[in-house]
Amino acid sequence: MAPHKAPDSSRRSDRSRRAIYDAALALVGESGYRRTTIEGIAARAGVGKQTIYRWWPSKAAVLMEAFLDLAARAAEEAAPQAHGADPQDGGAEYGIPDTGDLAADLKLVLRATVDELNDPLMEAPTRALTAEGIVDAKLGAEFVEKLLDPQLALYVTRLRAAQEAGQLRPDADPRIALELLIAPLTHRWLLRTLPLTHAYADTIVDYALGGLAPRS
Amino acid sequence: MAPHKAPDSSRRSDRSRRAIYDAALALVGESGYRRTTIEGIAARAGVGKQTIYRWWPSKAAVLMEAFLDLAARAAEEAAPQAHGADPQDGGAEYGIPDTGDLAADLKLVLRATVDELNDPLMEAPTRALTAEGIVDAKLGAEFVEKLLDPQLALYVTRLRAAQEAGQLRPDADPRIALELLIAPLTHRWLLRTLPLTHAYADTIVDYALGGLAPRS
Repeated sequence: MAPHKAPDSSRRSDRSRRAIYDAALALVGESGYRRTTIEGIAARAGVGKQTIYRWWPSKAAVLMEAFLDLAARAAEEAAPQAHGADPQDGGAEYGIPDTGDLAADLKLVLRATVDELNDPLMEAPTRALTAEGIVDAKLGAEFVEKLLDPQLALYVTRLRAAQEAGQLRPDADPRIALELLIAPLTHRWLLRTLPLTHAYADTIVDYALGGLAPRS
Repeated sequence: MAPHKAPDSSRRSDRSRRAIYDAALALVGESGYRRTTIEGIAARAGVGKQTIYRWWPSKAAVLMEAFLDLAARAAEEAAPQAHGADPQDGGAEYGIPDTGDLAADLKLVLRATVDELNDPLMEAPTRALTAEGIVDAKLGAEFVEKLLDPQLALYVTRLRAAQEAGQLRPDADPRIALELLIAPLTHRWLLRTLPLTHAYADTIVDYALGGLAPRS
């Protein structure tokens, strides 16, 4: 394909879509969720309001998709080796590796999560959306269903495999077990209590797997 | 003292202070942190604006104190047996019991935390303040310093005692260990992923102390 060939309509759509995502994330990061409007996103993206309404039913829907796209890109950038699938599949489609060494696999994924959370591109929009979900139960539920639950499902899958391999307590509920791994990272990041580092991620995996009580 | 004796000025101050706390918490829960103003708090509390400015330098300062007071009252109500000290001392002054049984003591305190988080009086204002702290780094730092860190210090104290008693791994850092206990509760509550119950608190303590890996 010649480099200067006029873009066809699908390429034009791709460019508009990318511009809309970028505008939506920038605005929500700068002004917060409530003050971000479809009109504002359209103006910043240089598209008509109707273009946005043709593709998405609401502001929440645009933002949710912009986020899925951002998370997929950030995950890919932070640790391509931790994620198998094509980034085009969306943020929730990559899996947790299974090398047979549960601790090593979890450390790899939690370190990648640390990098994503510390990525300045993610910072402001993720905080804005999370904060709004905390006070707005309906938006929060959508956030959990579309963005968080698909990620948690990957942990359930990996922990179940570990259980079958005898690396996880047979009586542990993987859906609860995963919270010991991911909640400390989220807590530290959201509340900014202490620095969120790779060493911290490693320690959380060691403590969660080995337990805080002494092993005899 | 006769029941109908005219209140002296210190009792009048106490009543004003209580009315200001109640008004501040109600407003922040209804309208969010940003739309709550000193003027609005004064009007709702039925006091002059100057009364508030005489006692507190800023909106953040009033709210922070109202919260400390609310947390102390909620803690007292949720589980008086879990807290030794006088509620007048403020929310951060009660300790974690030390009966010699670390698991039992942690379950008692985490169950009380579940009750506090599920208390409808706490719900809206706590969510509003937490959400604002997530997007406003300065307010978030104040929130952590004045409200969260004093609570975390109680866990550090209790976990250190457990370590000396041989009930906690000698190589565990109590400041990190506590995050495995409290972060899952905060995560579930903030993001509303799944119900926050006493059974959940118990399970978190069991998993954190015993570890997710099988014990041989």
